[in-house]
Amino acid sequence: MSSAAIEFAHQNQARFLEELKSLLRIPSISTLPEHKGDVRRAAEFLADDLRRIGMEHVEVIETEGHPLVYADWLHAGGKPTCLAYGHYDVQPADPLDEWKTPPFEPSERDGNIYARGAVDDKGQMYMHLKALEALLKTSGGKLPLNVRVIIEGEEEVGGEQIAKFVKEHPERLKSDFALVSDTELFAPELPTLCVGLRGMIYTEIEVRGAMIDLHSGIYGGAAPNPFVALCQIIAALKDADGHIQIPGFYDKVKSPSADELKAWRTLPFDEEHYRKSEVGSPSLVGEPGYSVIERTWARPTLDVHGMPGGFIGAGAKTVIPAKATAKVSMRLVPEMTAEDTFAKYKAFVESLKPAGVTVDVRLIHQGEAMVIPTDNHYIDAATHALKEIWGKDTVFIRSGGSIPIVGDFDRYLKIPSVMMGFGLPDDNLHAPNEKFHLANYYRGIDSIIRFFEEVGAA
Amino acid sequence: MSSAAIEFAHQNQARFLEELKSLLRIPSISTLPEHKGDVRRAAEFLADDLRRIGMEHVEVIETEGHPLVYADWLHAGGKPTCLAYGHYDVQPADPLDEWKTPPFEPSERDGNIYARGAVDDKGQMYMHLKALEALLKTSGGKLPLNVRVIIEGEEEVGGEQIAKFVKEHPERLKSDFALVSDTELFAPELPTLCVGLRGMIYTEIEVRGAMIDLHSGIYGGAAPNPFVALCQIIAALKDADGHIQIPGFYDKVKSPSADELKAWRTLPFDEEHYRKSEVGSPSLVGEPGYSVIERTWARPTLDVHGMPGGFIGAGAKTVIPAKATAKVSMRLVPEMTAEDTFAKYKAFVESLKPAGVTVDVRLIHQGEAMVIPTDNHYIDAATHALKEIWGKDTVFIRSGGSIPIVGDFDRYLKIPSVMMGFGLPDDNLHAPNEKFHLANYYRGIDSIIRFFEEVGAA
Repeated sequence: MSSAAIEFAHQNQARFLEELKSLLRIPSISTLPEHKGDVRRAAEFLADDLRRIGMEHVEVIETEGHPLVYADWLHAGGKPTCLAYGHYDVQPADPLDEWKTPPFEPSERDGNIYARGAVDDKGQMYMHLKALEALLKTSGGKLPLNVRVIIEGEEEVGGEQIAKFVKEHPERLKSDFALVSDTELFAPELPTLCVGLRGMIYTEIEVRGAMIDLHSGIYGGAAPNPFVALCQIIAALKDADGHIQIPGFYDKVKSPSADELKAWRTLPFDEEHYRKSEVGSPSLVGEPGYSVIERTWARPTLDVHGMPGGFIGAGAKTVIPAKATAKVSMRLVPEMTAEDTFAKYKAFVESLKPAGVTVDVRLIHQGEAMVIPTDNHYIDAATHALKEIWGKDTVFIRSGGSIPIVGDFDRYLKIPSVMMGFGLPDDNLHAPNEKFHLANYYRGIDSIIRFFEEVGAA
Repeated sequence: MSSAAIEFAHQNQARFLEELKSLLRIPSISTLPEHKGDVRRAAEFLADDLRRIGMEHVEVIETEGHPLVYADWLHAGGKPTCLAYGHYDVQPADPLDEWKTPPFEPSERDGNIYARGAVDDKGQMYMHLKALEALLKTSGGKLPLNVRVIIEGEEEVGGEQIAKFVKEHPERLKSDFALVSDTELFAPELPTLCVGLRGMIYTEIEVRGAMIDLHSGIYGGAAPNPFVALCQIIAALKDADGHIQIPGFYDKVKSPSADELKAWRTLPFDEEHYRKSEVGSPSLVGEPGYSVIERTWARPTLDVHGMPGGFIGAGAKTVIPAKATAKVSMRLVPEMTAEDTFAKYKAFVESLKPAGVTVDVRLIHQGEAMVIPTDNHYIDAATHALKEIWGKDTVFIRSGGSIPIVGDFDRYLKIPSVMMGFGLPDDNLHAPNEKFHLANYYRGIDSIIRFFEEVGAA
């Protein structure tokens, strides 16, 4: 099954890695205003690369936020058009002191490349470009199918600009299917397609007590403490089993099909290994009666990410802070909607307001849950390509994470997405020491080359 | 009643203010390691001033932490010896953006001097030095009584070094009474002596879940969330009325005497004004059945000061943090003890541990509650002096704050303390825009001069 393009990819692995390292050195953290210039730099880097490899109509598209990068090659008459999607922005790197090597100085160790964004999503998105390069360079500048590339810079902050672009300019992205590589293999060596995503609402609860910070000796006992009030609210959101207490929260939850649940039970999953090696907590938590896979793929959740405010330095400061905030997100499953869930959550939080404080509940961003149909030519082509490269049958999984753009592709472009990702469960995405297994980077490129060839051959 | 010393103090008010400003410019924040040099600079500033005004045996005493400043003048044969105590360290200044003028650039507005430490305690402690200067300069270098000055640099972080010094070297501080100016007037123009202090334990609760930060999409629903767990613990520490739920917490609380409660009811206190102008919250909180004065002076409390950990930047980061910490303090009243209360608190917090996490409870610092006897010569001299300067009878109050050294003076030096302070309830101590009313700075100096003269005249 070896093609000229795959030969080319194999011969250029060292260069493909060096180029990825250059991209990883750019700290394109979309949520931090001080990195705005770096985010743009990452966009320009990709536009330059797309031009160099022979893509056409390369453009850095300005938005109200971070720019989009677009390119296309549309000369494969009669062949399907792929919309290759990825994101070039990354999560913040804190806590910095837990990184073994600096997050923006890519470092190779034990067959992995370590850096913020290595797997999420620079490394995975860049596989698309390298697959396209291999195909273009070995076919006289031609591709076996039509391709549009769209890469965003706001995925980690909610993807507002690409959502707007997809909604307002569907004709500019007109395609037959999307290829999204921002997911992972269920286990090492096990080719995997993701066919379901959770949605999300990311919120802030701000509690205000006194008008200024007060001395806890002088005012303690009479002045409201916003952290205590906020803790009372948060504690009331879940019971001891992790069951969410928001009235009506579970009303619209659609359970996976019996077939899907049956297939999940055959996946190679060792709960004790997962607890010990991936999570590392004394025990796992969550709703009784659901397996870990169901809890993380098919059940909604609520998590607190941080509680800014007050005194967080070393030592002691005896202050009753004027305000306290909690960053709280919920993951949603089909058929929950972000709008309905946020309304129920906001009403419940407001109803929990303790005496002496005011409460403000804000929506920061949102994305809808998604289940992808598997009975189409593109999923078939993907499973054939993966079988050739990995020598194994593909497993269909869901992800507990959220890729809201997949819902927008469905809604506004009316196209299915193929979520073919090559991360590993222990790649530390969103955490210190994020990595990408180099063998998966190279085999991912091969897989995408073969997938494009399969789609084009039909 | 005008004495030569008071004349001198009046003529030198402008200079006394300029000197105080120089001291306020030194950011001697004892809890922040990066200000260690500034803390020492403040100590040296005071030692220089003590030498200049004519005090003897001036010494910057090294400790394992920040230094102590000592001086004495012991030539008033047969007269009592005063131990004049104060502290030259200050609280952190954050949140910086809420200061109208920078915390370490003293600024005069509306008859006040604004700066971190203006009232707590640089301005008040410095009144002692200026009173001594006025007496020494107008009496041929003599004082009407014997004086030892001891000034510490760790009051805001628990006062460990001075506590150690008092315990290990009581002979070096041998005195008949202490003068402590670190409290406030009950109301403007109302001379006040503080005769009771709450004690304190300052603690941290650290909750750990996963071994590393995890992606809340991938792991949400199965991985423990340490912030949720911590909120569940904190919410269980108090009921909706603010009553603390730690078993046995109130067992040893000694109520104020009927006479004391009766006197408190005659104090000019407008609860609605206090709520609106000092606290500024929608309502006050606290235990039903107790007045605000009782709740803040004579009842124990529990407050949360901040909850470090996780993501606290702007925007969104979808992380399940590996750990979360809460800074929690309790104010204690007679006859509670720090040791007993911490043991009960620790046991209760540990008993509340939710599934999936570990909990570590740490004591950061502590101080005992204190009630001062009022039937002695020094309290009499103080009320006489205050009557002369302020034209009104003194009120006896307690403070909800903690000055652990007063307990150590009682325990190890066997001397009573006169807590004569001149702050105002709205001086914003421990908060942005801390201030000291200049009229109170000047009248405080006069009051201390007159107090020293009264004690020496007996």
